[in-house]
Amino acid sequence: MARTKSFNESEALKSAMLLFWQKGFAATSLKDLEHVMALNPTSIYNTFGNKRQLFQKALDCYLHNILSRLFESLVRSKTAKEALGNLLKEVIRLHFDKSHPGGCMVVLSVLENDQHDAKTKKILNSALRQLRSAITLRVEQGQKNGELKPDIDGRIIGNHVTALIAGMIAMAKAGFSRRELETLIHSSTEVLLR
Amino acid sequence: MARTKSFNESEALKSAMLLFWQKGFAATSLKDLEHVMALNPTSIYNTFGNKRQLFQKALDCYLHNILSRLFESLVRSKTAKEALGNLLKEVIRLHFDKSHPGGCMVVLSVLENDQHDAKTKKILNSALRQLRSAITLRVEQGQKNGELKPDIDGRIIGNHVTALIAGMIAMAKAGFSRRELETLIHSSTEVLLR
Repeated sequence: MARTKSFNESEALKSAMLLFWQKGFAATSLKDLEHVMALNPTSIYNTFGNKRQLFQKALDCYLHNILSRLFESLVRSKTAKEALGNLLKEVIRLHFDKSHPGGCMVVLSVLENDQHDAKTKKILNSALRQLRSAITLRVEQGQKNGELKPDIDGRIIGNHVTALIAGMIAMAKAGFSRRELETLIHSSTEVLLR
Repeated sequence: MARTKSFNESEALKSAMLLFWQKGFAATSLKDLEHVMALNPTSIYNTFGNKRQLFQKALDCYLHNILSRLFESLVRSKTAKEALGNLLKEVIRLHFDKSHPGGCMVVLSVLENDQHDAKTKKILNSALRQLRSAITLRVEQGQKNGELKPDIDGRIIGNHVTALIAGMIAMAKAGFSRRELETLIHSSTEVLLR
């Protein structure tokens, strides 16, 4: 039988993702979802499941389409310092991109973790751990190439920069300016990695 | 006329604060509040106002009783390095303190800022800015004393460490271990301030 759905599934999911990203899990009502997805409750349920299942699909969509850009920014550059700078620039760029609600769906969901089941918590934790590993790896590559001093501990820098990114997002949401956030690029590439 | 309230107002407010701190504004229902405060809706309303007004009183209670400890940890120490180390230790200690829900009510509320009115957003922003100023000031004192090198920029360190603290809280909520978080003390005092 041919597909009879008259709506674009991935567009509807993207709309749900943007709403969860903006408001978090608890504050997003089914009514809100119906409105932004332009679907009735039955279509939402039949296609995406209940609110929790829809949230997990939206989170998956965020990880593959948005968070993935941070990982890409780390491999795009020639040097580890440049890579780290580009990573932080991408975090800032993403926050101020007018087509998005700003902030980060992962960080918001982590803070809201009382709302989530064990499976979602594991996905969130794993997203942050993957980011940390990618940073650590990039620093260690820079050491192997002779770009960075051997006395730097890549794992400690990985922890530090992961925390810094999550915190930058909190500061951005609190209203700190782009210029204030940009000072963190200098302190990370020139002070932390000097 | 003598006070006739038969409950302890500050204890009831503390219970509300702990619940908002754990769940955030959106996920906390009036039913939940009635339960933890052991009060009926009329008593809550007459004493603390509506949910938003109660939240603001709870936030005020958090700032004066919990966040204030971070500021105290900065002035308790002889050197700026020690002060910064103690600040980060206090953040970790607070998260793992079993009498609290962990995380931070300010950081959670900032991420949830879509839920809050302009007045609350201003209070949250100002709490982070005060923390940043206190860190900057402590670093600049360390420079005046000759403890820290003059080429460090206190304002940049202030931004950096404020972001780091907010991010540590996100990592702690995501399940990173105490040991992993403690590596940030070393990277801040020995790398950032070296």
